[in-house]
Amino acid sequence: MRFILASGTTRTAEIDGISAAGAAPNLMAHTPSADIEIVEYGRPVQVPIVPVSPSGCPTPAVITRAVRERLGFELTVIDAGLIRPTSTPTVSIGAQQGADIRKTKPVPDAREIFEAARQFGEALPDTSIMIGETIPGGTTTALGVLRALGENIGVSSSLPENPLSLKRRVVEEALAASALDNGGAAGDPILAVASMGDPVLATVAGFTVGALESGTDVTLAGGTQMLAAAALVRHAGIGVPLGLATTSFVADDETVALNRACGALELELETTDPKFDESDHVSMLRYIEGEGKEGVGMGGALALARRAGIDMDSIRDNIMEVYDRLDGDADEH
Amino acid sequence: MRFILASGTTRTAEIDGISAAGAAPNLMAHTPSADIEIVEYGRPVQVPIVPVSPSGCPTPAVITRAVRERLGFELTVIDAGLIRPTSTPTVSIGAQQGADIRKTKPVPDAREIFEAARQFGEALPDTSIMIGETIPGGTTTALGVLRALGENIGVSSSLPENPLSLKRRVVEEALAASALDNGGAAGDPILAVASMGDPVLATVAGFTVGALESGTDVTLAGGTQMLAAAALVRHAGIGVPLGLATTSFVADDETVALNRACGALELELETTDPKFDESDHVSMLRYIEGEGKEGVGMGGALALARRAGIDMDSIRDNIMEVYDRLDGDADEH
Repeated sequence: MRFILASGTTRTAEIDGISAAGAAPNLMAHTPSADIEIVEYGRPVQVPIVPVSPSGCPTPAVITRAVRERLGFELTVIDAGLIRPTSTPTVSIGAQQGADIRKTKPVPDAREIFEAARQFGEALPDTSIMIGETIPGGTTTALGVLRALGENIGVSSSLPENPLSLKRRVVEEALAASALDNGGAAGDPILAVASMGDPVLATVAGFTVGALESGTDVTLAGGTQMLAAAALVRHAGIGVPLGLATTSFVADDETVALNRACGALELELETTDPKFDESDHVSMLRYIEGEGKEGVGMGGALALARRAGIDMDSIRDNIMEVYDRLDGDADEH
Repeated sequence: MRFILASGTTRTAEIDGISAAGAAPNLMAHTPSADIEIVEYGRPVQVPIVPVSPSGCPTPAVITRAVRERLGFELTVIDAGLIRPTSTPTVSIGAQQGADIRKTKPVPDAREIFEAARQFGEALPDTSIMIGETIPGGTTTALGVLRALGENIGVSSSLPENPLSLKRRVVEEALAASALDNGGAAGDPILAVASMGDPVLATVAGFTVGALESGTDVTLAGGTQMLAAAALVRHAGIGVPLGLATTSFVADDETVALNRACGALELELETTDPKFDESDHVSMLRYIEGEGKEGVGMGGALALARRAGIDMDSIRDNIMEVYDRLDGDADEH
């Protein structure tokens, strides 16, 4: 089993109020670079911050790292448009930062990214892959792609109050800027990503198509961004089995209607509840209140722990350990 | 324990007869890119070749991978001047290919590489590190650096007949081109690498200085190239304990006088004999005849296996498995 993380950025995240993936807007560009250092090394190495939401919810990278410290799975990070330096080793596929989706072509190199990721997914010798993402603003681009494909699926948010009306307004503007109707890119995943998506979605979709075509078992690790990636894969004409592993926080989000979405996209759904409500540790409180929910492959990592027969009690101990270490680092700065 | 590989290229390898790190000179540029894919994934992914010497000696990446499949150690690859694309995730430190050392400044950015690698080595949270290399032509640049520093240490070769007189002639020309006497860069490791070295030596030396300065335990995994790296560390004024883990093939090479060299550089030497003479498998035959000897962290990986109490008999089984898989791949092409 290999765990892939596609990490990148989109300027869509700069729209005021759209994302909680950073304590302040000017720190958000660091978030994916920091997330991948936390999963790779257990703490930031080169990146000067630990990502937390404005209210103090820690990045889900903490949970993915905690499971990795327990299981030791192999990690491969793809640079899908990072803009801040990182000490994490990354596979380069030539991706750049995505523009604000209200521009005409926010991902002009969508075809090249998709193709490079497809070749990588096809060439990897592993028989089983999980793939997750880290990109601030990603649920808005996911909504954009789902609309462009004509898939009536709602998206989640890392904020406790999902700014849905703002996201919908941004997506309407973005459709107009690309002269697309709802469903106007159905059957054309490259057009959908190029016009409404982000470089991480191009990467995850391309990688998954390549891996599935070569007979690899793929589980998408995440929430509504992974539903958008799955929709891209289905609209590329790939009908083989595909899994989605996510958290109970996404499953409980009525905006998403997860079971219906997985049915529509023919995804085998695996939901894991880390039982954060049985803890009162600061690392988990905000999740119980509806923040964070998913990201950085969290739901996939939790599924791996469960598949390996590890109790969520003991995973929560690992989460506290990783969190407290990061918190100690932050105090030193 | 984290295993680091610094992988790069120098045009010094293009000098006729200097290196065996490729079946033919035009394939040698692929060798480090292929080596790191083999250690990372168990087989080439993007790179179109499996590195073998002209006589058929397989790359020592096979041995390092075999140990990794057994022990599962964490691997981090640094791009220290690769020129062929790879699907292996790499840490970027801004290094370029090194020029032929007979040019005036073959590594013009030696200071920047050293400094970036130093910062990376300092920032990593691990308590214990092994670092190895893959760079065709690296023993010639190692000899150049040792001469520039005034260290009277001989270098090994991946060829069964070490082309020592050729190497010495190249190094004499290189010293003249940089207007350096033997020992002319003593105490100035940046000058030694910039004038006579390669980007991998700049990386390994800088990384090791940073890691040692932050209290990390470091073992250099390799032969005479790692002696040159150690010399650079000592000439940077770092006197703390430092290990060297290499193979019995290097220890048996009288050109090197390994014990004396380790004494002069105050290195704790750890030699491992994989007992290839107890096998008649094609993957090991050339090593018994004096080819290959070291590289891609082979000696360090074997030391890790021994420290973990694993028999060399069973490591040889793993080596055959990795080799046969690669051989099967080659047949398919």
